[in-house]
Amino acid sequence: MVTLDYSLGILQYIPFYYVIWSDDLLSASEISVVQKTIEEDSSLDTSDKSQLLKWLNRDSPPTEEEFKKWKQTISNSQIKLVESDTYPLTSLSQRLGNVYCGDCDFNDHLKHIEINLGIQPNHYNHLFHVEVIHEKTSKQYNANELDKILMGEHRAVVEKFRAFLKNNVFQWQIERNKELLRESILKQVQQLGENGYGALAYPKEYGGTGNMPAYGAIFEHLMYLDGSLAVKFGVQFGLFGGSIQKLGTKKHHDAYLSDAGTTKLLGCFAMTETGHGSNVRGIKTTATYDKSSDEIVIHTPGKNDNKEYIGNALHSKIATVFAQLIVDGKNEGVHALVVPLRNEQHELFEGITVEDNGYKLGLNGVDNGKIWFNQVRVPRTNLLDKYGAISEKGTYTSPIKNPNKRFFTMLGTLVGGRICVARGALGGAKMALAIAVKHALNRRQFNDSIKVQEDLIMDYPTHQLRLTPAVAASYVYHFTLEEMMKSYSDESQPDKRKVETQVAGLKSIITWYANNTIQECREACGGKGYLVENRIPDLKGDVDIFTTFEGDNTVLLQLAAKGVLSDFKAEFNSAGFASVLKLLRTQLSDRLNTLNPIYANKVDAEHLYNPKFHKHAFDYRTRRLTYTLAMRIRDYIKKGVPSYQAFLKVQTHLIALGKAYSVELAYNTFSNVCESMENMEYKKLFTKLGTLYALDQLNQDARWYLEQGYIGGTKSKAIRQRVERLCTELRPHIEVLVDGFGIPEHCLTAPIAK
Amino acid sequence: MVTLDYSLGILQYIPFYYVIWSDDLLSASEISVVQKTIEEDSSLDTSDKSQLLKWLNRDSPPTEEEFKKWKQTISNSQIKLVESDTYPLTSLSQRLGNVYCGDCDFNDHLKHIEINLGIQPNHYNHLFHVEVIHEKTSKQYNANELDKILMGEHRAVVEKFRAFLKNNVFQWQIERNKELLRESILKQVQQLGENGYGALAYPKEYGGTGNMPAYGAIFEHLMYLDGSLAVKFGVQFGLFGGSIQKLGTKKHHDAYLSDAGTTKLLGCFAMTETGHGSNVRGIKTTATYDKSSDEIVIHTPGKNDNKEYIGNALHSKIATVFAQLIVDGKNEGVHALVVPLRNEQHELFEGITVEDNGYKLGLNGVDNGKIWFNQVRVPRTNLLDKYGAISEKGTYTSPIKNPNKRFFTMLGTLVGGRICVARGALGGAKMALAIAVKHALNRRQFNDSIKVQEDLIMDYPTHQLRLTPAVAASYVYHFTLEEMMKSYSDESQPDKRKVETQVAGLKSIITWYANNTIQECREACGGKGYLVENRIPDLKGDVDIFTTFEGDNTVLLQLAAKGVLSDFKAEFNSAGFASVLKLLRTQLSDRLNTLNPIYANKVDAEHLYNPKFHKHAFDYRTRRLTYTLAMRIRDYIKKGVPSYQAFLKVQTHLIALGKAYSVELAYNTFSNVCESMENMEYKKLFTKLGTLYALDQLNQDARWYLEQGYIGGTKSKAIRQRVERLCTELRPHIEVLVDGFGIPEHCLTAPIAK
Repeated sequence: MVTLDYSLGILQYIPFYYVIWSDDLLSASEISVVQKTIEEDSSLDTSDKSQLLKWLNRDSPPTEEEFKKWKQTISNSQIKLVESDTYPLTSLSQRLGNVYCGDCDFNDHLKHIEINLGIQPNHYNHLFHVEVIHEKTSKQYNANELDKILMGEHRAVVEKFRAFLKNNVFQWQIERNKELLRESILKQVQQLGENGYGALAYPKEYGGTGNMPAYGAIFEHLMYLDGSLAVKFGVQFGLFGGSIQKLGTKKHHDAYLSDAGTTKLLGCFAMTETGHGSNVRGIKTTATYDKSSDEIVIHTPGKNDNKEYIGNALHSKIATVFAQLIVDGKNEGVHALVVPLRNEQHELFEGITVEDNGYKLGLNGVDNGKIWFNQVRVPRTNLLDKYGAISEKGTYTSPIKNPNKRFFTMLGTLVGGRICVARGALGGAKMALAIAVKHALNRRQFNDSIKVQEDLIMDYPTHQLRLTPAVAASYVYHFTLEEMMKSYSDESQPDKRKVETQVAGLKSIITWYANNTIQECREACGGKGYLVENRIPDLKGDVDIFTTFEGDNTVLLQLAAKGVLSDFKAEFNSAGFASVLKLLRTQLSDRLNTLNPIYANKVDAEHLYNPKFHKHAFDYRTRRLTYTLAMRIRDYIKKGVPSYQAFLKVQTHLIALGKAYSVELAYNTFSNVCESMENMEYKKLFTKLGTLYALDQLNQDARWYLEQGYIGGTKSKAIRQRVERLCTELRPHIEVLVDGFGIPEHCLTAPIAK
Repeated sequence: MVTLDYSLGILQYIPFYYVIWSDDLLSASEISVVQKTIEEDSSLDTSDKSQLLKWLNRDSPPTEEEFKKWKQTISNSQIKLVESDTYPLTSLSQRLGNVYCGDCDFNDHLKHIEINLGIQPNHYNHLFHVEVIHEKTSKQYNANELDKILMGEHRAVVEKFRAFLKNNVFQWQIERNKELLRESILKQVQQLGENGYGALAYPKEYGGTGNMPAYGAIFEHLMYLDGSLAVKFGVQFGLFGGSIQKLGTKKHHDAYLSDAGTTKLLGCFAMTETGHGSNVRGIKTTATYDKSSDEIVIHTPGKNDNKEYIGNALHSKIATVFAQLIVDGKNEGVHALVVPLRNEQHELFEGITVEDNGYKLGLNGVDNGKIWFNQVRVPRTNLLDKYGAISEKGTYTSPIKNPNKRFFTMLGTLVGGRICVARGALGGAKMALAIAVKHALNRRQFNDSIKVQEDLIMDYPTHQLRLTPAVAASYVYHFTLEEMMKSYSDESQPDKRKVETQVAGLKSIITWYANNTIQECREACGGKGYLVENRIPDLKGDVDIFTTFEGDNTVLLQLAAKGVLSDFKAEFNSAGFASVLKLLRTQLSDRLNTLNPIYANKVDAEHLYNPKFHKHAFDYRTRRLTYTLAMRIRDYIKKGVPSYQAFLKVQTHLIALGKAYSVELAYNTFSNVCESMENMEYKKLFTKLGTLYALDQLNQDARWYLEQGYIGGTKSKAIRQRVERLCTELRPHIEVLVDGFGIPEHCLTAPIAK
């Protein structure tokens, strides 16, 4: 035992005071937590309390001598900080008491501080000149529990599926030759079809279970095996089979759907043309009804009017072809038809030309090709005629009279594919994060000169900032997409316009998020991330195109923004527009009531972590952007600028609105999921993930909020600091969080993730 | 002729007024340009002048009826706007006068407005309900002239080199098999070596020209052929040959340098180890001097201590190996030695194991491998002994006593490689930009319902914003790297520490810029950008690792920031530190003198386009970040936090400083280049590029400036608008700008760039 200047009461608090005053992060409101604890701690006598409270005064902080004395007291004790303790700092205090005073109980009051300030070992372990027993990860949360929460109601299907994926045919291998890769991917797709996974979303009578949400969960899992597999699976069962299901009628279902589900019939989805990527309505392929033979003639008129980038084009026997339907000399707009491509011997029918698209940046296991039709004839009944039919008499009829509405209704049925694209991108991001995090928990680089071992790269602040917000976002987007798929699949809500707007925006922000995340993971793994064996390269190459296919993100965000505006759009150019703007303005100023200087500079943790603040900030941004956008468009139109040109002039504004709307939607959806969670411990973790997502988003767009005066400079800095802080707080759980994704171990083949 | 309400004088101004009042972008200060013109226009009578000036009043703008009358006047005239006219709007005015009044001269005063407001056809062609004769690009500037300016003093070498590259051996082909690709890349490297290009930077007596800057220009060109070629070229001639040249002495030069230059001797550069990527000082390979045999024994001690990712590992006969040199039981630190790997039959010598690194995300034409040494013996003279030698008596000597300084001096000689990495990345970005821009000038999507033809995607504001700032940055970085290479190669300045700091920062921001740019280009080209034949996929895969190799960007930025701090570093922990901080603070407040609310909200074009504003803003940011960083570190150190930990705590701050410093350096360098240009017309164009770069950078970091109160919300918005505006202004020159890169036509193989 050593001589000591402090009473036991004070001694116990010293490690805490040392931490608090070493770091400039703890705010006044957090010090109040300590204050309250001291006041309630009955083990302290009056003079202890008064001394401790005195040291809490920010206006006259402890002297540097005092601070150094604390430091000495701790280092002289020779005790070790044990990170794996449940309450490492409180335990250290107890052992400190034992060293100096011989007998000291575990003080629950101190535990209270440790919990409430969220103090983590990586906040302070550098402060103690003692050896630290490192634990890579905390055991507070359990990965299996997280996984169960993420699987939700699909748990049975997903667990069975994971077991099924252990089949050798799914083993990942490095294969760069596209022909060999395509062969092996085709075999995998056939396996999935033969085992009922392709038909999952089809009606029971065609071999399915009618469970589109489960299909989405399965789809994400395919990304863990191979991006090409996911995409080819999506083309065969989602796009080809889905178009038969959604655009066709019973005769088509009976003829094709069961075989599509089992892969007995391989098909493709021929919509995009070389000359027309994003502008589907402008496609040039014609389908002209020939009354004399009761046939429809499919034709590619010009050089760039061929179907382009059609997945499954080389393996397919048949295609759903989108074309301008011409009946009796009148163009009835874009419709889909079933067109056989090849015979049993896999020879192309006359008039059809198919060309391989060749090597791509990724997805080389998918046989994308170009298709030309030269006066190809199919029976009239091959028209997928749910939304537009040709009667036996040869006249065109449609349940939707407005051609514009008809077109969008047809495309709208395919929105499920867009959800799957986002889901697949998310799967890619999860996989990359799992690999990068596990690598960062093994890899050491650089060290303090006194330590033998180098530091884990996961303990570097820049590294935490790189990966942790992305992990949080993956949880947010997971639940957002689950909810979106539920809304989409809800047959009781036939009007899908709202879901369409939402999915357009979410697909964009999530696929961009996924690409950025995979790139961060690549760089975070250094040269190791560049090796194909470590999987990140393929994820990067495969997910890249997700920002473009099933709708280019830039185009989709404008679509989403126009959806937000659509309530007002009908009013453009009319007298009523002024009153709509007035309403918007009123709503905004209601929301601005709180925007006084105090609010704009409120920086305490309670406020910054409060979902009300996040929701208000997101809501304000969406409304403000909508209002100013509407104003700008109105001004242009008033001046005689045509509406098309006016929208062109506000293009960047539209994109900002589309993003803002989607981020708000994701946060609110996740926030509702958190609210309804029953397990309080996990609810706490999820809430923290939501908070990190919200603050990270506000942090990314802080410039806009500063411009609006919604936040002041101090608050902007505080938000940035809180993001860093939350990353540190989540550090002990980072491995559990990525394990919670539930990526099957046999899929995590990357050597650096072992 | 039609009846008309306006005099000829007023009539001529109507198209201009129509444009000015249609757009909300023109500021008060710009309207003053018009004002002045009117006052000086002698063709106007007093009542014309008074009417025109009245219409300029922003407080009582022309009525909507007036505005509509202008519009009618123009559309009734049926005249066409001809974009290819030198002054399209002035010409339109003239023709308008001709239609209504029969005879109208070209009015030079109007031309003055058109030039001074920088009004471009894409600002207004949508306003005129007349058909526009589109020209893809303006002829004001000439691509060859730009190219000459970019080639600078390397013109002779570069032009000869471009012609040489037409050799069939350099023809780009799609080859995914790494063995076949490596073979063809090796042949190309040999061709280059045999023709003197490898030795370019070596002294004359070893077959070179001693021209490192020309070597840099050549290196960039190799990226237009294949990233693998550039990297393998860099490994053989820059890293392997360069290490012999820079770290060796005459005996080594005589023995190896000529053969390295011609590729008669293929070598590799074995520095990085699996366990030690960024931390070179921590490598574990040992080189132990054995006095008895006068040999040095190279040994790989542990499982992860093998050399990793060594380019040329499979083709090399010899290697420069970095290892801990142990003489007489004492570790003298990291040194380089020449170690033969294979015999004439290309069989590995005993004790050496080489393993292929396998497929990578990109650069599959480079044979990267792992190397293990098991007690491999080489003669003592194989030590590259410029900075550390073992005498014949077996004692270690070095001209640099301080081991720390010695280590950094050795590494410092290799900084040229880092400049080349940045240069190569820049070449990749240029190539991707050229392809994306050319595609955007061919590709049309969507249209106004009244037009038959769809719009060029280059005319979409979002597209311009995506590509144009990147084109501007490519010019800025081109000249920055040229200047940097000059400083580095300047033998009269032996202290390279400053250049090292600068290169560390520039390599980071430029390689990140290149990756972001290539990604934008990929997305801007849609699905076409995803096809390997269009080159962007390989550029993306190849350039990706540039952010990691030759120094991880995150690590390098910290190095740069520490360089900036280094003047103060020596003072840390000493009494003098306070006075250093005081000095910094004084400097800052001097710079803050101008930071009054008026400055923070100055938004006129003259101010925003003024290089003084840009320089002030960049300088302020660097100094402010330095000051606050120094303060934070001081506070931590005062509290007893060890320096290593203190730097860890401010890691994100270091990175912000590193970036700020590098951007400032790039802008200032480019700005100086602009200043010294003699051709005034091109100087104008270059100045505009510099302005766009500066404003785009400020735009990206507007949040920080807002936080500091350096700019207000209005100014932040104005900066964003100016960035969009400059993109539009540069739209007519965008093709000339990318053609100015001088990428040889036979290298631009992408079908979409035709």
